[in-house]
Amino acid sequence: MAIDRVGIIGTGLIGGSIGLAVLKRDINKEVVAYDVKQDRLEEALRRRAITMAVASPKDVAGAADLVVLASPVKSIPSVFAEINNSLREGAIVTDVGSAKSRIVEEIEPLVREGISFIAGHPLAGSEDEGIEAADADMFEGAVWLLTPGGEPHRGKYEELCSFIKGLGARPLAMDPARHDELIALMSHLPQVVASALAGFVADHVDYELAPKLAAGGFRDTTRLAASSPELWVEILNENRDHVLELLGGFKDRIGELQDAIEKENWPSLKELLAKAQTFRLSIPKKPGVTPAELVELAIQIPDRPGVLGEITEVVGDAGVNIEDLQISHSPAGRGTLHLFIKGDTHAQVARDAISGRGFEVHQVRR
Amino acid sequence: MAIDRVGIIGTGLIGGSIGLAVLKRDINKEVVAYDVKQDRLEEALRRRAITMAVASPKDVAGAADLVVLASPVKSIPSVFAEINNSLREGAIVTDVGSAKSRIVEEIEPLVREGISFIAGHPLAGSEDEGIEAADADMFEGAVWLLTPGGEPHRGKYEELCSFIKGLGARPLAMDPARHDELIALMSHLPQVVASALAGFVADHVDYELAPKLAAGGFRDTTRLAASSPELWVEILNENRDHVLELLGGFKDRIGELQDAIEKENWPSLKELLAKAQTFRLSIPKKPGVTPAELVELAIQIPDRPGVLGEITEVVGDAGVNIEDLQISHSPAGRGTLHLFIKGDTHAQVARDAISGRGFEVHQVRR
Repeated sequence: MAIDRVGIIGTGLIGGSIGLAVLKRDINKEVVAYDVKQDRLEEALRRRAITMAVASPKDVAGAADLVVLASPVKSIPSVFAEINNSLREGAIVTDVGSAKSRIVEEIEPLVREGISFIAGHPLAGSEDEGIEAADADMFEGAVWLLTPGGEPHRGKYEELCSFIKGLGARPLAMDPARHDELIALMSHLPQVVASALAGFVADHVDYELAPKLAAGGFRDTTRLAASSPELWVEILNENRDHVLELLGGFKDRIGELQDAIEKENWPSLKELLAKAQTFRLSIPKKPGVTPAELVELAIQIPDRPGVLGEITEVVGDAGVNIEDLQISHSPAGRGTLHLFIKGDTHAQVARDAISGRGFEVHQVRR
Repeated sequence: MAIDRVGIIGTGLIGGSIGLAVLKRDINKEVVAYDVKQDRLEEALRRRAITMAVASPKDVAGAADLVVLASPVKSIPSVFAEINNSLREGAIVTDVGSAKSRIVEEIEPLVREGISFIAGHPLAGSEDEGIEAADADMFEGAVWLLTPGGEPHRGKYEELCSFIKGLGARPLAMDPARHDELIALMSHLPQVVASALAGFVADHVDYELAPKLAAGGFRDTTRLAASSPELWVEILNENRDHVLELLGGFKDRIGELQDAIEKENWPSLKELLAKAQTFRLSIPKKPGVTPAELVELAIQIPDRPGVLGEITEVVGDAGVNIEDLQISHSPAGRGTLHLFIKGDTHAQVARDAISGRGFEVHQVRR
């Protein structure tokens, strides 16, 4: 393998996790890195996410065969321009930005003969930020989107794929525009929809009454609205063309539902709802487990310390793995614990174990 | 108290829970009931949700001082019409339907002198259906909306409130139209939005790719789309005027966000997102606990039996109550357990206890 030294520019959550994974998995012995924030760079060194801290992005480029641009999405083209003339012959450059078209458009014309730029986007992360939350196992099983484009990379694409597989991830090639459209669809559109809903509801109900009327469905549908406005203004700006197109289409879909209700066209309304239901049920609760395999058990839980431990412990003692769980609260505050178990046999074992401790368990029908 | 005998028409989840609560809490000694499904009625008797099963709705009316109409929302006016002439002098009739305007409009003109009809809607329930999931504690702490209207009920409204408080719930008077608007806003609109989003996304991505790209945010925002289309066609039909008006306003809000992005009016976009964020953060994770009090701990969890038990058990052993919890899975399948603890002191105790078992715990910044 031609990658002897990995370089990382930006040692935050993603850059730091890549460094940790490279070193933990012994993919390379050396990770050289730079970050605009000196304290973050030092923390990365202290946590052994990198082996060498250097003074500039150019120093990273001069030292590495693979350079990963992991700075904020807006800065990536200018960072590339800055390091361009310092890159080594045969170097691979990739990035981890969440929108790809603009990055590819701005960087590709700059790429010199002998350098390969292949943009990327690992679908992994955390609600925590920064090097403190970096994790060597972050990419284990994750899809890692790559936009190799049409250009032949003389085996460099395959080298980058090997590197990514080494981190535990699954490379998936995609056109930059398709990438941005899909991420707009599955991440940026839901964010705007959740914010639109929460903001709209805020105009129609007072802050004292809302919590009394907010059931689990409302809470789930609007959860994303709690995200940082600053962060989302930047993301929506970066991917605005795709987001705008999807918002137009989504508005039309709301119009179709409105129309079906207005015209009392119940078969059409039912068809629209049924299509959404079929699609939503096709997405497994947990990646790798199909919904048909999962059995949901609902348990009423008293509000006291230790009760969750008691229930999850008896299930664990019975040798049954809990694939997923959540607690729902009625507006009244009553809690129900929902456990998702793989397969009927395990679910029955879990049910018996929980009932045996005096809790009432319902199997939720689908 | 003038209510000597409670009558229930419809012994499903809500009707059955009312019966169980009346008898468990010793509010009345006798609950007489009817259900169109004979086996459900017998099951209610077997579970002691009622004390007497009768052969018709009229028989309930003839025997009870308080009649609760707990049959499907569509049927309520016709059930009232059927029992009207059999009601006892001084009887109170209420219902538990999730939309109120049409019910009140159709029933009020029929109400005879000496009978009080006061429509109601307990904000309680379960994802399970039927008498099997009925629960004597279902209404503990729940808000129970009532629409007493302008008509004086000669103390009957107060009697009904006492009865509802006896079940553990909190009566809240509201105009039928305002009720329907608020429920359209907090329950029916989110349902349509989630279905619109899931259905729209289904048109733009294939079923094989979607699970790879579906992160927690997408899953939450579209969760409601998995609900039964049949059920929702009926509910949206029942409350269609309010739903239609809100859908129009919501579509405009999507348009405003679209406009801000299109015109690159970032201050306006940020303001819209920030308003939604402020509102969403004002809704406590758990009723009765303000968001500011809750500390979120995020713990990376290996995928094996017993690990949840181990974590929740050490927290319980440390005397700390877990107010809420959830597991998030990255598209890669990595699991993070999120625990919500009330107050910094308890959160620190929980952190230490979990760290002591060798798990890495992050406190999520807000």
